[in-house]
Amino acid sequence: MKRVKVLKPVLVSNQQRAKENRSMFDRMNSLVINIIASPGAGKTSVIKNIVRHFKSRHQILVIEGDIKGQIDSQSISKLGVDVIQINTATECHLDAFMTAQVLPQIKKRYDLILVENVGNLVCPAEFDIGEDYKLAILSTPEGDDKPMKYPLLFHLAKVVVINKSDLLPYLDFDPQVAKKGIRRENPKAIISVASGDILKARFRKNF
Amino acid sequence: MKRVKVLKPVLVSNQQRAKENRSMFDRMNSLVINIIASPGAGKTSVIKNIVRHFKSRHQILVIEGDIKGQIDSQSISKLGVDVIQINTATECHLDAFMTAQVLPQIKKRYDLILVENVGNLVCPAEFDIGEDYKLAILSTPEGDDKPMKYPLLFHLAKVVVINKSDLLPYLDFDPQVAKKGIRRENPKAIISVASGDILKARFRKNF
Repeated sequence: MKRVKVLKPVLVSNQQRAKENRSMFDRMNSLVINIIASPGAGKTSVIKNIVRHFKSRHQILVIEGDIKGQIDSQSISKLGVDVIQINTATECHLDAFMTAQVLPQIKKRYDLILVENVGNLVCPAEFDIGEDYKLAILSTPEGDDKPMKYPLLFHLAKVVVINKSDLLPYLDFDPQVAKKGIRRENPKAIISVASGDILKARFRKNF
Repeated sequence: MKRVKVLKPVLVSNQQRAKENRSMFDRMNSLVINIIASPGAGKTSVIKNIVRHFKSRHQILVIEGDIKGQIDSQSISKLGVDVIQINTATECHLDAFMTAQVLPQIKKRYDLILVENVGNLVCPAEFDIGEDYKLAILSTPEGDDKPMKYPLLFHLAKVVVINKSDLLPYLDFDPQVAKKGIRRENPKAIISVASGDILKARFRKNF
């Protein structure tokens, strides 16, 4: 498989570039969170809730990764925070190089940089972009078996949000099964069960 | 971006291999459907419903693509059909080479071969595996904007299932918006709104 042969050097050079991005974020004293989930799991909603909660006290930047279009950027910028769009065209993830390309657009210091990765449980987990940590979102309609089937993301994420808990009465989703699956990959993960109004306590710890 | 540089020759050689797979499937007179959707959109449930409906009259094989594990293979094989598992390890999609690798395991003729791709809206759409057509599943909790944000799959799929319609009363999902998004990419797509018991009429046409 040719693709596997070339992936390794790409990942090595990505790692070097991620290290440089991380140094830059550290010099700006910005907390950078790489938010990863399936399409429609609630990445944009989680970001909006974090923005609403913290924007009065903190400078926030959102970096929006999408294959195509600016739907989410437009709706987030209405909240009055700065947004930078990255369109990946065919790529199913953000990587450290794409992130580095938009760094010159950052003209002031931000306390918090929220990066919305492309909707995908697989590839985005493989690419460090220089973030402080990964936040994974698992949406209840996806099923409680997903941490077992897509282990890498749950292994790497510092925070896992089990989202859309308001749908639990209508679904065959057992939060205990999901939590057990996450803990098997990552015993130290911070797991929040959330819907709509989200995650305030968990994020506060980082400020 | 080094990855883009190498992707093109990989896709060209994938296309050649897909053509060879397609010839083999044609010689066996098998209808091969490549089923693509996000994690948890209902690929396995759709497959099970198709199997239940057609297994008494047709020989069916299921090829299961997963990063890791055999959860779905085990539950599908309980229905009494043959299942072949492909574990992709780090790859976020099936390609024509992985499919070719399991072809020698096919020891008899099947009328219908259902291939469950890795849960992902992006990469699996890029790789022809030699199928007759792609079937995309869009689950209502993912949101009605997904055809706009992940256009390639909806552009290529012959059939699109809007699944989990039983959740519509609890969601902010407008089937007309979703259908319009799909039709913009693919005016000829066959669109079915489904939940649970699914799609019989649409599949019958292919037999």
